[in-house]
Amino acid sequence: MLAAMGALGLVPSSQARTFTAPQPGDFTLTGRSPKRVVILGAGIAGLAVAYELLKAGYDVTILEAAKKVGGRNLTIRGGDEITEIGGVTQRAAFRDGTYFNAGPARIAQWMITMDYCRELGVPLEIFVNSNADAYVHTSGKSIRLRTARADTQGYLSELLAKATNQGALDADLTAADKTDLLDLLREFGQLGEQLTYDGGERRADTGPIPSVSEVLGYRIPYALTWDLAHDQAMPMFQPVGGMDRIVDALVANVGRHRIRTGTPATKITDTGREVVVEYQNGAARADYCVATLPPHVLARVPSTLPPGIVSRLGQGFVLAGGKLGLEYGRRWWELDENIYGGTSETDLDIGRIWYPSHGFHERRGLLVGYYTVADPAAVYDALSPAARLDRALRAGEQVHGPRYRKDLLSAVSMSWAKRPHVEGMMNVGLQGVPQAHGRVYLAGDWMTGLVAWQAGAFESARKAVLSIHERALKEN
Amino acid sequence: MLAAMGALGLVPSSQARTFTAPQPGDFTLTGRSPKRVVILGAGIAGLAVAYELLKAGYDVTILEAAKKVGGRNLTIRGGDEITEIGGVTQRAAFRDGTYFNAGPARIAQWMITMDYCRELGVPLEIFVNSNADAYVHTSGKSIRLRTARADTQGYLSELLAKATNQGALDADLTAADKTDLLDLLREFGQLGEQLTYDGGERRADTGPIPSVSEVLGYRIPYALTWDLAHDQAMPMFQPVGGMDRIVDALVANVGRHRIRTGTPATKITDTGREVVVEYQNGAARADYCVATLPPHVLARVPSTLPPGIVSRLGQGFVLAGGKLGLEYGRRWWELDENIYGGTSETDLDIGRIWYPSHGFHERRGLLVGYYTVADPAAVYDALSPAARLDRALRAGEQVHGPRYRKDLLSAVSMSWAKRPHVEGMMNVGLQGVPQAHGRVYLAGDWMTGLVAWQAGAFESARKAVLSIHERALKEN
Repeated sequence: MLAAMGALGLVPSSQARTFTAPQPGDFTLTGRSPKRVVILGAGIAGLAVAYELLKAGYDVTILEAAKKVGGRNLTIRGGDEITEIGGVTQRAAFRDGTYFNAGPARIAQWMITMDYCRELGVPLEIFVNSNADAYVHTSGKSIRLRTARADTQGYLSELLAKATNQGALDADLTAADKTDLLDLLREFGQLGEQLTYDGGERRADTGPIPSVSEVLGYRIPYALTWDLAHDQAMPMFQPVGGMDRIVDALVANVGRHRIRTGTPATKITDTGREVVVEYQNGAARADYCVATLPPHVLARVPSTLPPGIVSRLGQGFVLAGGKLGLEYGRRWWELDENIYGGTSETDLDIGRIWYPSHGFHERRGLLVGYYTVADPAAVYDALSPAARLDRALRAGEQVHGPRYRKDLLSAVSMSWAKRPHVEGMMNVGLQGVPQAHGRVYLAGDWMTGLVAWQAGAFESARKAVLSIHERALKEN
Repeated sequence: MLAAMGALGLVPSSQARTFTAPQPGDFTLTGRSPKRVVILGAGIAGLAVAYELLKAGYDVTILEAAKKVGGRNLTIRGGDEITEIGGVTQRAAFRDGTYFNAGPARIAQWMITMDYCRELGVPLEIFVNSNADAYVHTSGKSIRLRTARADTQGYLSELLAKATNQGALDADLTAADKTDLLDLLREFGQLGEQLTYDGGERRADTGPIPSVSEVLGYRIPYALTWDLAHDQAMPMFQPVGGMDRIVDALVANVGRHRIRTGTPATKITDTGREVVVEYQNGAARADYCVATLPPHVLARVPSTLPPGIVSRLGQGFVLAGGKLGLEYGRRWWELDENIYGGTSETDLDIGRIWYPSHGFHERRGLLVGYYTVADPAAVYDALSPAARLDRALRAGEQVHGPRYRKDLLSAVSMSWAKRPHVEGMMNVGLQGVPQAHGRVYLAGDWMTGLVAWQAGAFESARKAVLSIHERALKEN
């Protein structure tokens, strides 16, 4: 995902973690009354808008096109049915206690999603994003990440120490710099007395030490560095019991009765005095509307939004994305390979394998057998669920051998491009779209620097809420 | 700790995770009967010896000098009293739910401690050993680890790219190597188009980017690399509820009635036919004895062990070690600094500050205010508990500012050098001592490559058990 986002010039940003929600006092003190707001979409952005507005007593209605709330925050459990655009249906056969976070699965500690979990009472546990003992799988070889990292840092340090001692950097470094640099390199690369790399305990592999050409020839810069990114560095977090605990908590606060599911909007009309949102067999009227649909889906809804905005909404990149949940009856990755959570990055079309960050040492466990974005996702999307599974198992066998098929109990694959009403995993390249036109406001992760993160959805929700509230305190 | 161990040439090793415990069938099939074994010490080594021998039906007795079992596996809770050699007593005032792992606190996923937790049904959760958002505190400055790491990797990459492009490494690298190297450095250092380091999203700090001299001048090679060590890399683990859950589970399996506490051995006599262990007001007789006391403590017990062994037992290095538990009524490190678990490495005499890896977002939490080994530990050991606290708070304030004193509820400091019957944090330099002499066997982490790790204690216990069992199956 990062690679895809990096390619598109998207760099995750920090988040301000201070926010003052609207309060009832804002209205009572001004003699005004709270307004009606209709929200399109009960994903994180829509639910968060409702949640924050309700704090101040707004009259809130959410229209959700799907039967299920939560949008891309989707946790699949046994018995759940997944029907794709085109009609293919999977029914999850997961046993009790098994769940699959088919959408977002991790939270960085600096994201405001953490604050919502605290405020909503959603208990958190650590998500093992990166694991030194997981593998980098490249050119048919599976190397423990710690070994690849130790060998890489070892040779980089040896080479830089050599160049430094040969005077190659005398124009760039003072004598003191050079002393500090060599002291650093000795530790950074775990170099020997002669400042050469001859292996070390970090690699934790008793096999022969590969040559510098072999190590450089792995060509795994991404696998060695992705977990340094601001949004990927350890530790990360997940709600205990499934990512949809956040949805559940928001819904409980908003009130189920304020959410009308199965109501795709068929027309959005801003009359200048109010907004009317029509759907099959009904309509909602409000002072303001917040549309949180994916922008390319919103672009197809007839509306009074100006053609310029509508056309821009339809012009972003829509990236496909997919995940495969593999439920096993034996946690062989823990028992046989000493891998407790984390990610094996591969050069195969599955992208990566995720090991579960909870239920350690329990009987069953769920791996993520692929997590794909853009082109590789499209490859899997084109297949039937059974063919996706077979293809992913063949890839996984290259990493883990025949045990990858053994003890497999069930599987569910998620194609976000084929998810009704969502039709993609993320929308990129649309950050410049205006936040509002008339009485219609837009919200969604795609408007922020945190595309495809729940934190982006929360951030955009806060912005929409503050804008509406500021206006509501003036109008009447 | 690593620094101290590294200085002594100790390098943690891998562990074989296969072990076949003795079984009752071993005896019934040979017509022999299980033997009596007396174990000195109810720490992890002693408890594990008892646990494994009992599987085969041995008659096992444990003599523990202290009133409390567990040895260095010590979890302190509210109401616990800690009396040091010299008589100073602290009574922990921790609130309900607060605990302090005053001894071992983390487990690497490749260690056999994981297997014992699984076998004993001790639930595990992740221990955040390293946190990108914690600080490196050096020369009065607190820098987020991720920022220090990004800047370091950035400049190392820039310098190496420059040297490479200037031809300084042409004798060492092929043209293909050079291409691979530059591709790697671009990502490794998040370099710009011109292969220079101009900051990047990884550093997550909007302040000015320090110069290469400033970054090299931090002189923090240890802080940048310790979490790459085989025994320190993420993820690591802890038992849910306290490290002594392992002790509790072992004791429950061994049976409390087999453990005589408050019985320091006064004499160990190997008669050639049996071993007699005397203590105040009693004695235990057995076919074999396993002594798991710290070697320098064992050396003082009168015994029939040959003077050569006794003198070696007394000649290792005994390292002091200390930890300070700080209970706060507000988790300000999470709320105000977005630090959820992990370690801030400092150049102060507290060594490091640990943030808790459990109870995220709860009301209270316990920091480890120092974790010291060797010389800095001796500095704190020499102080009264109140003076230790004050000194550590003054150091912590340098890292976290005045909030470090605010919301502090209570504190307990542990001096392992002053812990009766233990008298030190770890014993190093004794790996060559024979495992057994006559009917007396030795066990303890200090005999293995995993000094000061519970995994070492378990490993040595398994070795003693296998040796005794092999012999028991021959003798009778």
